Amino acid sequence: MVRNVAIVGVGQSKFGVRHDVSFPELAWESVSQALDDAGLEQKDIEYFIVSNAGGWSSEPLPAVVVGEYCGLTPKGTARVEAACASGSSAIKLAHDIIASGQADIVLALGIEKMNESPTPTVVEFIGRAGNYFWEFQNFGLTFPGYYALYATAYMHKYGATEEDLCRVAVKNHYYGSYNPKAQFPKKITLEECMKSRYVAWPLKLLDSSPITDGSAAAILASEDVARKLTDTPVWIRAIGHASDTSNLSKRDNFLSLRAAVEAAHMAYKKAGVDPSNPAKYFDVAEVHDCFTIAEILAYEDLGFAKRGEGVNLIREEQTYVGGPIQVNLSGGLKAKGHPIAATGVGMAVELTRQLRQEVEKERQAVIDRGWALSHNIGGTGHYAYVNIYSLDKPRG
Amino acid sequence: MVRNVAIVGVGQSKFGVRHDVSFPELAWESVSQALDDAGLEQKDIEYFIVSNAGGWSSEPLPAVVVGEYCGLTPKGTARVEAACASGSSAIKLAHDIIASGQADIVLALGIEKMNESPTPTVVEFIGRAGNYFWEFQNFGLTFPGYYALYATAYMHKYGATEEDLCRVAVKNHYYGSYNPKAQFPKKITLEECMKSRYVAWPLKLLDSSPITDGSAAAILASEDVARKLTDTPVWIRAIGHASDTSNLSKRDNFLSLRAAVEAAHMAYKKAGVDPSNPAKYFDVAEVHDCFTIAEILAYEDLGFAKRGEGVNLIREEQTYVGGPIQVNLSGGLKAKGHPIAATGVGMAVELTRQLRQEVEKERQAVIDRGWALSHNIGGTGHYAYVNIYSLDKPRG
Repeated sequence: MVRNVAIVGVGQSKFGVRHDVSFPELAWESVSQALDDAGLEQKDIEYFIVSNAGGWSSEPLPAVVVGEYCGLTPKGTARVEAACASGSSAIKLAHDIIASGQADIVLALGIEKMNESPTPTVVEFIGRAGNYFWEFQNFGLTFPGYYALYATAYMHKYGATEEDLCRVAVKNHYYGSYNPKAQFPKKITLEECMKSRYVAWPLKLLDSSPITDGSAAAILASEDVARKLTDTPVWIRAIGHASDTSNLSKRDNFLSLRAAVEAAHMAYKKAGVDPSNPAKYFDVAEVHDCFTIAEILAYEDLGFAKRGEGVNLIREEQTYVGGPIQVNLSGGLKAKGHPIAATGVGMAVELTRQLRQEVEKERQAVIDRGWALSHNIGGTGHYAYVNIYSLDKPRG
Repeated sequence: MVRNVAIVGVGQSKFGVRHDVSFPELAWESVSQALDDAGLEQKDIEYFIVSNAGGWSSEPLPAVVVGEYCGLTPKGTARVEAACASGSSAIKLAHDIIASGQADIVLALGIEKMNESPTPTVVEFIGRAGNYFWEFQNFGLTFPGYYALYATAYMHKYGATEEDLCRVAVKNHYYGSYNPKAQFPKKITLEECMKSRYVAWPLKLLDSSPITDGSAAAILASEDVARKLTDTPVWIRAIGHASDTSNLSKRDNFLSLRAAVEAAHMAYKKAGVDPSNPAKYFDVAEVHDCFTIAEILAYEDLGFAKRGEGVNLIREEQTYVGGPIQVNLSGGLKAKGHPIAATGVGMAVELTRQLRQEVEKERQAVIDRGWALSHNIGGTGHYAYVNIYSLDKPRG
């Protein structure tokens, strides 16, 4: 019999430009909250996974450094990285360690301190997250350029407009304005978004997620332990994952991220979700809106909308609070911020709090079904993880 | 019930300076061998973990890039890093994914292409694997300096000599000379070692492991699958892990790596090994001889010798073929080479082949008990993993 695993404690630092704290101090902001939330002490953690892409920060061995500062020494540890999907790979591996019986309590920490390097260095480094040999070195694309390929293809085929893209930013900033831990907790108007400068046509500054420092932490526990710690464990019901070619010239089209489709398919199959209408299973989702177009693609890749109709969900405000599927009520990567390897753990933190109905009331999802989904992409769909969380226990 | 997990296929590239191949080509050298050895195709792999420290090579997202080249797309993946112990963390996580029931067949690949950067850059980068804030920036230590602290403390307390350290190098080069995949497959004499130039007194060039490019791959499978694939599965019996302070000024002494002691203790407890005489359980071990002193410390940290008596094991040639505990018959990090994050996977590859009795006859261990141990250290004992392998199946 496979062991059930639940999230029993979560924490998140303030996201933003965090020159006010060191790397380990930034980690402790979320770890301390997660320990308090779970009612645990450091000695109770049996293994900890540190999700960190690094390259821009001073600590090349982040796991031991934050482990020591957070009082987790001498527990075993490793760092994981799957580009911008690193955080979800950390949740997967923490889950599997517990499900395997090797530990009962595991901490997944995501942390990134991107602003320790100058912005051009960070942009170059992220750009190299494409295929270095094929794209970055030879053609000079950075990430706004990659997603602009998808945006132009989508606009051309389905008649979406720049205004439609900006509607995603308006929604996510609206909810982000009520999230005190968001990097940009302020509303923006459609006009402000449309007037913001182009980064890579048709994507503008306000279509783009920012460069962010931040940390997020989730403590996972086996069923027996979870039952003792909390009355509201959030169960990890299924995790799907996939990868795709890093050579964009080999992609079939720029209308969908194939890895996201495959990861969703795997997660739905494991969780018993009917892929013909998955939206009906979930109250709330956090999706990877690194650029506004990415949220619209996510609607379709996850099966929340048919091909070409994802744009209708944002036009018709169906992904707002009270809609059929409530998306990115944290503010998303767009307004909450996108500290690369902390993002996936942050999604788990947000969805745990949403399912427990404990976030700020203006951005609290209506929770009827008790199920939530995260969609976390690395690169331009190089990696994808789709995680499903539920208030009801999966099995047995 | 916990699921048993076995290694069913292994491969290793030639270690050395590998300007002749690209990063993904280097990966394929070991992955192709492991697939052939297991009798599997790429489509059979359900998830792959890429152990890579990186920083010196051109691909910052190694997992998808090697996955695509090796034909593993669209399978899910993540990179792991635990400094020089990365490879063993990859084995642990691959094991746990299968033990959890999330997959039946997982590939652990370790790869490093260190020579894509100039040597001083590599040395600086490795140096930063100490605590950046406390050691590297302020005091200027690089890794030979860290281990020289341990060597001088050990020599002072127990009367070991520079000759004793060199005896480790002589043994490991002796066996490495019979390993065609070793970086330095040549014997050295005690005199040659003693005459080699100092890197950090008392450690000389020939006390030191080299900068290496290489890859190693191990395919792990659940019991049911392993039984169908091979008559000689090598079972993963236990994995122990620990971390320690990265601020060396906080270490109690420089005579032992505490994380190694704790990791061994955990592994012995899980496997039912009596810690008062663990050597009697094992035929053969691969230990982390990044510098010669490290192998002597390993003898003691693992309990193969009492404190201060580890040096006797090498003086009396007890760790040679036919001795009570046969150590580093691959040539060790010293002669086989040390491609940082490939090293731990390489240990698993070597021990699998030793237990199957299929290595070159001059360096084949006597296999009586059918048990083997790997000891893999990250940093200067910042991370430690101790893995136990056996020919007999762990549990019912």
